[in-house]
Amino acid sequence: MDISKFVELSLGSWRSQRSAHHLAFSHFEQVTSTIEIIPLTQEDNNVIELCKLNEIDPKIIAHPFRMSWEGESDWDEAATFEGTTILVPIPDPDNPKTGRLLREQGYAETIPSIGKYEITEDGTFILLTAYERATAEEKIWFVNPNFRLRVSLIKTSEGTGVVTASFSSEIRSGSVKSES
Amino acid sequence: MDISKFVELSLGSWRSQRSAHHLAFSHFEQVTSTIEIIPLTQEDNNVIELCKLNEIDPKIIAHPFRMSWEGESDWDEAATFEGTTILVPIPDPDNPKTGRLLREQGYAETIPSIGKYEITEDGTFILLTAYERATAEEKIWFVNPNFRLRVSLIKTSEGTGVVTASFSSEIRSGSVKSES
Repeated sequence: MDISKFVELSLGSWRSQRSAHHLAFSHFEQVTSTIEIIPLTQEDNNVIELCKLNEIDPKIIAHPFRMSWEGESDWDEAATFEGTTILVPIPDPDNPKTGRLLREQGYAETIPSIGKYEITEDGTFILLTAYERATAEEKIWFVNPNFRLRVSLIKTSEGTGVVTASFSSEIRSGSVKSES
Repeated sequence: MDISKFVELSLGSWRSQRSAHHLAFSHFEQVTSTIEIIPLTQEDNNVIELCKLNEIDPKIIAHPFRMSWEGESDWDEAATFEGTTILVPIPDPDNPKTGRLLREQGYAETIPSIGKYEITEDGTFILLTAYERATAEEKIWFVNPNFRLRVSLIKTSEGTGVVTASFSSEIRSGSVKSES
């Protein structure tokens, strides 16, 4: 599994159930959403722009994509939320299992982020992102081509205490991929 | 990380938040519980009994322990649940990262079970258990000595469809271990 394979597996529409555990108060939050992941070209204007902003040569990037989501949380049942962001993987030239991930807009902050990723032996994608006031650690893995899991931790910026742990189960909706 | 280290890290009292995703209906279930894990000796009567029942030589087992839990689910707020079980690791003689796990009583069934475990490079404990009408896959890992995560999947007995995906975040309660 490398980043190209991982992005390709992720393309499409997903129906997501997410549970967040806010640990200090043993509080639960439930979120249902739909997620859409579509490929972008390396010549896409927004991709070029994001690369420029971060002083990255667009020639060294791999499989940029757009992720959009729309859903609702049980914290405010009246409100729905939605968002979209562009993600640009930059594989390490000397180790295709690791690299950086540019994100137009992070989860925890509204500014662009650069995370570091690694793909483990068993195909788990691990992303570490340092924000101004927090660090995020995300693990994503496929149980099968139509079902993926995501565990996210939000830690204090020192990376010690875990503030929130959340879990998403994502089922492919629409055209389903065969296992082979 | 081997099974002895893993069991030692797990000993103690834990406060657990668990979210179950029942996938067919996008249903959420929330469970809070306390979990107590205490070591047993290889000479413990219940351990000897469980080994006999499964025709296992008690000399080849490692670090048997008892796990007890008590909690409540939002599915039935009036009721609390509790239970206790004995677990007996049987490491493979030729590969200490893998082995079998005897369990007095499973989660999904009320009969004894034997699962197969493996500990990955990054210290994740993976347990696969085949029951009569389902298979269970469980991943447990430590974020730090006082915080562990557990992802469990219940699949159809053919191992294809995932029926339930659940996520527990477990915080050590009582005396906290230092990181070193």
